[in-house]
Amino acid sequence: MKVHGRHYRTIWPDPEHPEIIKIIDQRHLPHEFIIEDLRTVADYAAAISEMHVRGAGLIGATAGFAMYCAALSAPENNFDSFVDDASRKILQTRPTAKNLAWAVERQVQAINNESNPAAKIKKSFEVACEIADEDANFCRKIGEHGLNIIKKISKKKNGEPVNILTHCNAGWLAFVDYGSATAPIYAAHNNNIKVHVWVDETRPWLQGAKLTCWELGQEGVEHTLIADNTGGHLMQHGMVDLVITGTDRTTSTGDVANKIGTYLKALAAKDNSVPFYVALPSSTFDWQIRDGVKEIPIEQRSADEINYITGLTQNNNQETICISPPETRAANYAFDVTPARLITGLITERGIMRADREAVLELYPEHR
Amino acid sequence: MKVHGRHYRTIWPDPEHPEIIKIIDQRHLPHEFIIEDLRTVADYAAAISEMHVRGAGLIGATAGFAMYCAALSAPENNFDSFVDDASRKILQTRPTAKNLAWAVERQVQAINNESNPAAKIKKSFEVACEIADEDANFCRKIGEHGLNIIKKISKKKNGEPVNILTHCNAGWLAFVDYGSATAPIYAAHNNNIKVHVWVDETRPWLQGAKLTCWELGQEGVEHTLIADNTGGHLMQHGMVDLVITGTDRTTSTGDVANKIGTYLKALAAKDNSVPFYVALPSSTFDWQIRDGVKEIPIEQRSADEINYITGLTQNNNQETICISPPETRAANYAFDVTPARLITGLITERGIMRADREAVLELYPEHR
Repeated sequence: MKVHGRHYRTIWPDPEHPEIIKIIDQRHLPHEFIIEDLRTVADYAAAISEMHVRGAGLIGATAGFAMYCAALSAPENNFDSFVDDASRKILQTRPTAKNLAWAVERQVQAINNESNPAAKIKKSFEVACEIADEDANFCRKIGEHGLNIIKKISKKKNGEPVNILTHCNAGWLAFVDYGSATAPIYAAHNNNIKVHVWVDETRPWLQGAKLTCWELGQEGVEHTLIADNTGGHLMQHGMVDLVITGTDRTTSTGDVANKIGTYLKALAAKDNSVPFYVALPSSTFDWQIRDGVKEIPIEQRSADEINYITGLTQNNNQETICISPPETRAANYAFDVTPARLITGLITERGIMRADREAVLELYPEHR
Repeated sequence: MKVHGRHYRTIWPDPEHPEIIKIIDQRHLPHEFIIEDLRTVADYAAAISEMHVRGAGLIGATAGFAMYCAALSAPENNFDSFVDDASRKILQTRPTAKNLAWAVERQVQAINNESNPAAKIKKSFEVACEIADEDANFCRKIGEHGLNIIKKISKKKNGEPVNILTHCNAGWLAFVDYGSATAPIYAAHNNNIKVHVWVDETRPWLQGAKLTCWELGQEGVEHTLIADNTGGHLMQHGMVDLVITGTDRTTSTGDVANKIGTYLKALAAKDNSVPFYVALPSSTFDWQIRDGVKEIPIEQRSADEINYITGLTQNNNQETICISPPETRAANYAFDVTPARLITGLITERGIMRADREAVLELYPEHR
């Protein structure tokens, strides 16, 4: 997608030094566009856990390149155990995101299938690039499938703008390109279908205010920022035609772990008969578990993310301010689980399906 | 209630110059405790519309004193039309809050019943003090009634802390004293019943983070600050025993207009069978309307309250920062309406009742 009119992905090998992987350090957006070089396994672990990168697909792609970095950095005489250690380090950075484990496992298998360090390094680079390309490709297809939903609503509204509410950032910044929840929106925009996006600001980290508004703005998509509290009121008054969110882990039964607060919007959508779709590449499925609310581990992050907020002062400096009485105890659950019963449908690279096991396995029969 | 151990109300006449009314300028809390003098009708209008004071009861009490100020400032030869103009100015400051209109109407009647300016001024001061005293007294009674709900849950939990979630600030800062939603909590705390409060930070204005945390802290009540997105997750996992909120306008059919986001918490409470109570002095009832969602006007405030946040820097200065791309369009609906079907009960100064017309009129037969 575009930044100041130029095409970017969210992660890419340096063209001249492909052992150096480049990312957009998203902590500084929307106020500064900073590109960071990742060179060591520790760089990758920090980038994921401290949210230089975030979002289902991008966490997966970054983990893929992290494993390449691990192979590249491993001493020949201790190769396997170094890579093994690194994989555990990477796995521990974020507990809820399924793509992370999925990418690490895919790399571990690929590396183990090769017989010598040089071949392992070469293979792990290829697989990392494959994961990234596949993520972009899957998101593009999600856009094509989701476009049909928006088209239908647009037709019903005689071409009046389709009002789409989204939570957090499941945009191209959360993947390698296109995004999941935003892919149908960008596809509609590019097909000259009028859309308008209600952007939940998404406390505590403000991914909506900082990232989704920024990327929609760069692409020229109409949008309005709202506090997370607002969606229910808008739906009560017919001001939302469709909700699309992403997901960080999805059960084959259709439960969805996504950014904290998603569940509340799903309840409001249900209460007001607004269609609620979740967009995901299949790498986000956890095929092992059945009950999302009981089984998906929910990451707890630092209380500082609640008590402190960073933004731009009038003097154009980024400043961090405290919004509560000093030393207020805060709890910071990063995700919640939306039960399948509240979800109208899942949009994946293979198509649109009901959020239940039968429908999911019909499109993914290899997981029966 | 207490500030640094000393008793305060939120609004009071200066003991030596009772024509000057004092308020706590809540915009500076929790970082600075600033008392402001109100001397002109314009002072009152700014204090209400710019939220130096806010909250159902305190808006009413401030409007009461504003009408005293209007009478006091009126020229003898143009008394009635001056007071009339002032009442319209005050009424326009906040459209959703019922207590505002209620207090202004009460004052207009009282003033009209007196025959000469001196008597009108004297009467309007008495009525303003009555409104304030009544508000404090009603909140105290709400505390007594609500205490029974908390007592029952505490007993069921064998004295383990009762986890109460609240949204916005319906604390003593929102009234003259005690608060509405917090009154039962303070009553429980003072009766040595263990309580723990989940405080929704309440974007955009952050009344929860800034005001509720501060006043609970001053009173020594255990609490944990959370992002507004979090309540659903907590309820799914049995971490909330009870929700209590306030209301800015209540229909006799039991619909409740309260701070934006209240409706989402009510949906989550319903979905997880968590009791959801709304506490209010009867001055908050709008006896004229029946359908809250359709008939209660919802205030829209400045987009700046979404795009900008004020807090304390590391250097102990209050600083305002921008959290979104500059010039992002934002929508700022200040309230939403929670339909009666989601509400377990209303707690008023007269007792606890179901949120329906029959039950409300049983306790308020004079409005039949």
